[in-house]
Amino acid sequence: MRICVLGGDGYCGWATALHLSNRGHQVAIVDNFLRRQWDHEIGAQTLTPIRPLADRLRVWRELTGRTIESFVGDVTDYEFLASTIEEFRPDTVVHFAEQRAAPYSMIDRKHAVFTQVNNVVGTLNLLFAIQELVPDCHLVKLGTMGEYGTPNIDIEEGYIRIQHNGRADVLPFPKQPGSFYHLSKVHDSHNIMFACKIWGLRATDLNQGVVYGTVTDEVAMDEALINRFDYDSIFGTVLNRFCTQAASGHPLTVYGKGGQTRGFLDIRDTVRCIEIACQNPAARGECRVFNQFTEQFSVLDLANMVKTAAGDMGLPVMIQHQPTPRVEAEEHYYNAKHAKLIDLGLRPHYLSDSLLDSLMNIAIRYQDRIDMSVFQPQVEWRKSRNQTRAASSAAAASVSEDALLTRGDH
Amino acid sequence: MRICVLGGDGYCGWATALHLSNRGHQVAIVDNFLRRQWDHEIGAQTLTPIRPLADRLRVWRELTGRTIESFVGDVTDYEFLASTIEEFRPDTVVHFAEQRAAPYSMIDRKHAVFTQVNNVVGTLNLLFAIQELVPDCHLVKLGTMGEYGTPNIDIEEGYIRIQHNGRADVLPFPKQPGSFYHLSKVHDSHNIMFACKIWGLRATDLNQGVVYGTVTDEVAMDEALINRFDYDSIFGTVLNRFCTQAASGHPLTVYGKGGQTRGFLDIRDTVRCIEIACQNPAARGECRVFNQFTEQFSVLDLANMVKTAAGDMGLPVMIQHQPTPRVEAEEHYYNAKHAKLIDLGLRPHYLSDSLLDSLMNIAIRYQDRIDMSVFQPQVEWRKSRNQTRAASSAAAASVSEDALLTRGDH
Repeated sequence: MRICVLGGDGYCGWATALHLSNRGHQVAIVDNFLRRQWDHEIGAQTLTPIRPLADRLRVWRELTGRTIESFVGDVTDYEFLASTIEEFRPDTVVHFAEQRAAPYSMIDRKHAVFTQVNNVVGTLNLLFAIQELVPDCHLVKLGTMGEYGTPNIDIEEGYIRIQHNGRADVLPFPKQPGSFYHLSKVHDSHNIMFACKIWGLRATDLNQGVVYGTVTDEVAMDEALINRFDYDSIFGTVLNRFCTQAASGHPLTVYGKGGQTRGFLDIRDTVRCIEIACQNPAARGECRVFNQFTEQFSVLDLANMVKTAAGDMGLPVMIQHQPTPRVEAEEHYYNAKHAKLIDLGLRPHYLSDSLLDSLMNIAIRYQDRIDMSVFQPQVEWRKSRNQTRAASSAAAASVSEDALLTRGDH
Repeated sequence: MRICVLGGDGYCGWATALHLSNRGHQVAIVDNFLRRQWDHEIGAQTLTPIRPLADRLRVWRELTGRTIESFVGDVTDYEFLASTIEEFRPDTVVHFAEQRAAPYSMIDRKHAVFTQVNNVVGTLNLLFAIQELVPDCHLVKLGTMGEYGTPNIDIEEGYIRIQHNGRADVLPFPKQPGSFYHLSKVHDSHNIMFACKIWGLRATDLNQGVVYGTVTDEVAMDEALINRFDYDSIFGTVLNRFCTQAASGHPLTVYGKGGQTRGFLDIRDTVRCIEIACQNPAARGECRVFNQFTEQFSVLDLANMVKTAAGDMGLPVMIQHQPTPRVEAEEHYYNAKHAKLIDLGLRPHYLSDSLLDSLMNIAIRYQDRIDMSVFQPQVEWRKSRNQTRAASSAAAASVSEDALLTRGDH
């Protein structure tokens, strides 16, 4: 199968591209390296020393004999995107090419507007490119469990049957996203559903939970293939932060009571879920939604698990509660369905088994690179203008603003 | 009360600005005249000969002694919008300043992207401007009944109580919008709801039905104040098309079976609904949704009403069915609630009473200006590239594309 991975130089995208290539698919990566640029903007970097894409692909070819093509450009530039799709002619497009950090979208107006324009226009462009050039192509789009928010009822997979005043219908599950980023994914979902309806496109919208882990079978083949491990307060995820905090003797910083419950999955399951979605395409006209996670945890659950694991390794760890910078319920009902990928063959990896290997060991191995100053949150939801670390340098801020302004213009 | 009317040179905006001014409010109009530019782009014009805004405002001042300020610029330009809000310091902002035609948004990729970027960025900018400059200001935002689509259950006003697996919650009503334009309004609604939650803004989202009529008390004062009457297939509404068709001896063109049922209201009720919303602001942190229409009709109902009214005036009329250019159900359940504005004091005008005065008589009075070539639909939902009339001139098309490309860049 010919598969385009948009955003294939990023965290999930890189692991996915390698996995699909290893399974014998013809893979192309499309990326503009914006994710690497954001590291410079916010003054943080991945704990793991990742290599430039060209190096990564060269090593992959040398190790496996498999070639992954790369197309360098921006999906909000329609001419670029259309020429890429026309040249590669994918059977499936896996779309990770979005700004994916809630705190980044909440920095200020420019970052909110950038996130929504970048994500919505990229996805609109992709829908038009598929319709005009490869209408039978299957779109596998990454959404997020965060689209649903935390309703007081069970969360279904995309659609819910509602009985009301003696009538019934199956309707899109109501969305209550919690950041301008999560909102952008809700906008995408509505746009994709509509394009499937009017043009008969086929799409799978994967509402993914929080992904953890660094090591997949392919990444483990060589140090040069190592994946990102983000632990800063803007792009990092909570588990990565806890593990680097434990590895550096810093207390684990839990926002509020820590009752915030979310769906999580191992990156080894991310790549497998994508493969399953590709192998089982949606029908023409179908916009299918899968909830892509394997386990639910509260933030306090995670802190306790990391504390125990670190203790077993001889690392004493404290848990420190601090006010949440977000506007979110600190305690709430949460029960999200996630049966469809299991039904299609997913065999989950569980956090209890991978916590040491893929998280604590990585954090310890690269502990010299830990920058403790990036642990503290810099972005508060209740403020419409936040100062990020890098913005303290006026020159850096002005560069990043100019970069933002030239985006989404295509 | 100090009220900013964004989009105050457009159809609903103009009637609203005059009405609020007449009621003694301090009114400012903010507009960039894009609506007038689109007439040139698509090669159509309002049936009624509207005057430039400066003329309109001068006549209004001479007739009533009341001054409406005007600020000329684009709400997607944050510097302009913020300086306007800062200078005028509104108590209420009424936001009509969006691209509001479904067919326009469905012309091709550029028009879809433009519509969503223009509408979403304008509204995001406004939310940030209110939060940063006038956080107590009440946002009155025009949404559309088209956000809901045509579900097989009763449509509630913005939110619905859902019982599911033994639990219950009140959640945003699921949306199934039917064009890239309607989608943009759904995106706005989600963004507004979130801003109210995190910043404690106050907002009223008015999901308006199809507005008909030209004459309000204020517009009727002088020919120079006359409002738009759009009957072309892109910006025109179905009632206006039927009335101009009847006035020019053209058959009434009903798309498909004509069972498409929607909510409708007289423009005299639009201006009154806006006034009611302004006078009864939402609470801090509240995102209130009102369904703003007074009667439901199917397209075939409307055709028959126009046929009868025209017959009474001695105009014989035929009804002609033709394939719908949209992707929509031609027969469906439709029962939308609309109690909240009535509860706050709205006394509806009914179509049966205004059909002759405000629609047929206007169509006949300006029948020399009717261009029958704009009746036929030019935009098909199932095609991702449509040729509009004006695009047949390469030069005109290239100008309009350049104009589009420079939008949403601020």
